[in-house]
Amino acid sequence: MSSVTKTTATTQNKVDEIDKIRLNLADDWKVLGSVYDLLKNGKAFCVSDADRDAVKIVDFKQPNEMKQLIDLSIDENKTHTIAEIEDLCRLVIKYSVKTNHGRFHNQLFGQMDPYGLIGQWITDALNASAYTYEVGPVFSLMETEIIRTVCQLAGYAEGDGIFSPGGSMSNMYGLVLARYSRHPQVKTAGLFGMRPLALFTSEESHYSFVKAAHWLGLGADNCVVVKTNERGQMLTNDLEAKILKAQESGCEPFFVNATAGTTVLGAFDDLNAIADVCEKYGLWLHVDACLGGSALLSYRNRHLLAGLDRTNSFAWNPHKSLGAPLQCSLFLTRERDLLTRCNSIQVNYLFQQDKFYDVSYDTGNKSVQCGRKIDAFKFWLMLKARGYGSFGRLLDHAIDISKVLVEKIKQRGSERFRLVLEDNQYMNVCFWYIPKALRGLEETPEWRERLYTVAPKIKERMAYSGTVMIGYTPLQYRGLGNFFRMVFTCFPVLEEAELDFILNEIERLGEECEY
Amino acid sequence: MSSVTKTTATTQNKVDEIDKIRLNLADDWKVLGSVYDLLKNGKAFCVSDADRDAVKIVDFKQPNEMKQLIDLSIDENKTHTIAEIEDLCRLVIKYSVKTNHGRFHNQLFGQMDPYGLIGQWITDALNASAYTYEVGPVFSLMETEIIRTVCQLAGYAEGDGIFSPGGSMSNMYGLVLARYSRHPQVKTAGLFGMRPLALFTSEESHYSFVKAAHWLGLGADNCVVVKTNERGQMLTNDLEAKILKAQESGCEPFFVNATAGTTVLGAFDDLNAIADVCEKYGLWLHVDACLGGSALLSYRNRHLLAGLDRTNSFAWNPHKSLGAPLQCSLFLTRERDLLTRCNSIQVNYLFQQDKFYDVSYDTGNKSVQCGRKIDAFKFWLMLKARGYGSFGRLLDHAIDISKVLVEKIKQRGSERFRLVLEDNQYMNVCFWYIPKALRGLEETPEWRERLYTVAPKIKERMAYSGTVMIGYTPLQYRGLGNFFRMVFTCFPVLEEAELDFILNEIERLGEECEY
Repeated sequence: MSSVTKTTATTQNKVDEIDKIRLNLADDWKVLGSVYDLLKNGKAFCVSDADRDAVKIVDFKQPNEMKQLIDLSIDENKTHTIAEIEDLCRLVIKYSVKTNHGRFHNQLFGQMDPYGLIGQWITDALNASAYTYEVGPVFSLMETEIIRTVCQLAGYAEGDGIFSPGGSMSNMYGLVLARYSRHPQVKTAGLFGMRPLALFTSEESHYSFVKAAHWLGLGADNCVVVKTNERGQMLTNDLEAKILKAQESGCEPFFVNATAGTTVLGAFDDLNAIADVCEKYGLWLHVDACLGGSALLSYRNRHLLAGLDRTNSFAWNPHKSLGAPLQCSLFLTRERDLLTRCNSIQVNYLFQQDKFYDVSYDTGNKSVQCGRKIDAFKFWLMLKARGYGSFGRLLDHAIDISKVLVEKIKQRGSERFRLVLEDNQYMNVCFWYIPKALRGLEETPEWRERLYTVAPKIKERMAYSGTVMIGYTPLQYRGLGNFFRMVFTCFPVLEEAELDFILNEIERLGEECEY
Repeated sequence: MSSVTKTTATTQNKVDEIDKIRLNLADDWKVLGSVYDLLKNGKAFCVSDADRDAVKIVDFKQPNEMKQLIDLSIDENKTHTIAEIEDLCRLVIKYSVKTNHGRFHNQLFGQMDPYGLIGQWITDALNASAYTYEVGPVFSLMETEIIRTVCQLAGYAEGDGIFSPGGSMSNMYGLVLARYSRHPQVKTAGLFGMRPLALFTSEESHYSFVKAAHWLGLGADNCVVVKTNERGQMLTNDLEAKILKAQESGCEPFFVNATAGTTVLGAFDDLNAIADVCEKYGLWLHVDACLGGSALLSYRNRHLLAGLDRTNSFAWNPHKSLGAPLQCSLFLTRERDLLTRCNSIQVNYLFQQDKFYDVSYDTGNKSVQCGRKIDAFKFWLMLKARGYGSFGRLLDHAIDISKVLVEKIKQRGSERFRLVLEDNQYMNVCFWYIPKALRGLEETPEWRERLYTVAPKIKERMAYSGTVMIGYTPLQYRGLGNFFRMVFTCFPVLEEAELDFILNEIERLGEECEY
């Protein structure tokens, strides 16, 4: 074959390949019709209580084993048939963690609300982006409607807000807005030559403020840590002392973060007391309510957020307690128009001003992102299906059942279980399990060190048994080593018997280990 | 009824409500089985060429009309049945833009690859988060595998990377990493008191650098704009002049962004020439390859990225040309370990060091986010199904067909159509349509002003006719008013006849308007 013929043949092959892909697309799309069955058969969601016993949360494999079980390699020219792709999907489902198993309590989120997933699937299939009304007409109105409703609940008379890709980003929005509000010239001139700006947040607060301080050019050292009381709430007198100290050292305090629902203990800072301090010193008050913001929906527990109407902004993640699919995070601010002024710039190819509709519906320019995933519809659908009051009552139930767990832990006796806090404010319950081998011994520092190895060891057993997943953590600033942190969520809707299962399982697995 | 009895009754109601929600969950989950049919019947994806003619891309309604058509309000106690929820979903699908219609060319993305959507649906259903191997074992290995492969293709011998929520964020990763690499103390001390740091990017580049300069505390004014040549490529001599000028004015240059595939013209900066300048002045070279990074997969067009191996980092969005569902954005860096050192902090409740597996698989601490949506699997599944070479050839096809469009535009004559660029480097084709009313007139400034109203007017007709969607934009720094920007993508796989349809439709709609 001459080289010319060869080239032609190769070109022809390529054309054939492209045509083949084009003609196969109709079949490729049809595979979507089997995704639900793949997931259902793979037990990706537990639809009944009986499933919980029958289905493993995780079939844990070490990374090197996993690499043997699934051919992860991606290749230039190796293709896979639809049947092979379905087989791969089955494997992925098999070896992934079933976070929708009713016994996944490993993070701050639990089971999803199925209406959330319905909304997410539809959003994905429509594949819109949240910048303009033009591309996401229905979704942009929904985002606005949710923000309006949440502002109302929060007592922000004329607030504004945006969906962002997670709580860390929502907290960053708060910092950027506070800084812009105080020093609008930072937008153009940067921070160079300025007196160091200082922000304040409690030792129990989320690490995103430290990361944000780095990214935003403020510096982690200017993220000042405020002490907390026994329950994990910010000490207002320490806040005030730290503000004064920062001023004395030449810094300019500008921002206080209060936490509504800390990551470990679920503590709520006293917003009114902190607002008093912020008013006194003229500081922006942001609330990291990523976990605790859901209390807004509950009559009985809304008091945890008392004073929210006096704050300047807050972050809230419906993807935690409420069961919205990841990512669903809101940033809200009391200040009208500020978000637009802060983040907008002239963008001619996207936010044209000569459009044929009211461009105030193009909300994308408020964002630091350009393309932005639609996170509003799934949450809207959940609220529409159940009414937001139901979520409030599901939250009440989660808090109630967490108190029942506390009682059950107490009933089992301090020989076997030890609580980190006796009275939790929210639905986080933190505790140690004391295995038989450690009972009745003198509680020396060495004994404690052994105790702190218990949770990680049980955690390993949990992974291999696949019966339950509960997180663990130390609280180093309190000198406390590893303990379990069980966080309840709206879904699964737990009954009391489930709590006995969990404690029994910890005891059972705990006695399989050596300490 | 006494108040005591009343309270008990209310409590009972609440318990009943919670039980009812719990018992209904099995039915709620089943609705997911009908989502595919809802979407298919709602024509959310066009599976055949015939669909294109039969299905409207959008049934456009003004915001106030839309509010009448869909009851957007969310209420505390109003609930909706499954049937009502399905009806609402039908309306949402009906009034949303069908971005998977083969004639949606309004943004830098087009139709999705169905394998991407399959992966996305499974990812959503499993609802994992990308922080730890523990919660996303399969997905964390896939992310690593994709990063490894892309680094190899880019010529990064020992690179690293991360998935981020969009190109703007990926570009921010580049800026933060460059700054940390040069001045690691910024992480702790911030930018205060430093000499202003300056970054350089072309007038054609994406606006995310201006937004990032604001957020990161660098200031938009320290984002120095470099001129471009006729084709939209950065002028290296102007870059060098601007660097010197910044130095003279007391700034410290630290970062250059080169663009591979500009938003409007699809221009590729000369990476080798810019790398020479960066080496000379010791600057970090980042590439915004959000649009153009897909050329990495093509033998024939990879030359557009020549010199990528000499850069320090780049951003690439497979959710643009390749048809991965939004959001799918990669940040890659040549520097090993730097990403971890830059972004990691000690997080005890998540990144415990006493785990029972190799914690180097916990990649979440490299991120500025905490919870992070899994964006790797959908892309992995696409690459697995087709092999990445196929995407390269689909991209070649998209570029080829864009050249055919250019030819067709030329054939219709400069009386009717006018190109912004005669020879596009990538698959962006920019052009004006000259309606009959404007033909044969003297091309005065007033005539131009009238010409610049044509695209917005046709755009309005497109929305109401629902036959095709193509974006428009001005290029103000060149003194050019509104023109159409048609950007080709891997999907739909277009044939030549489709181009005639598009041009005919522009002519048809164009003659319906008054100028």
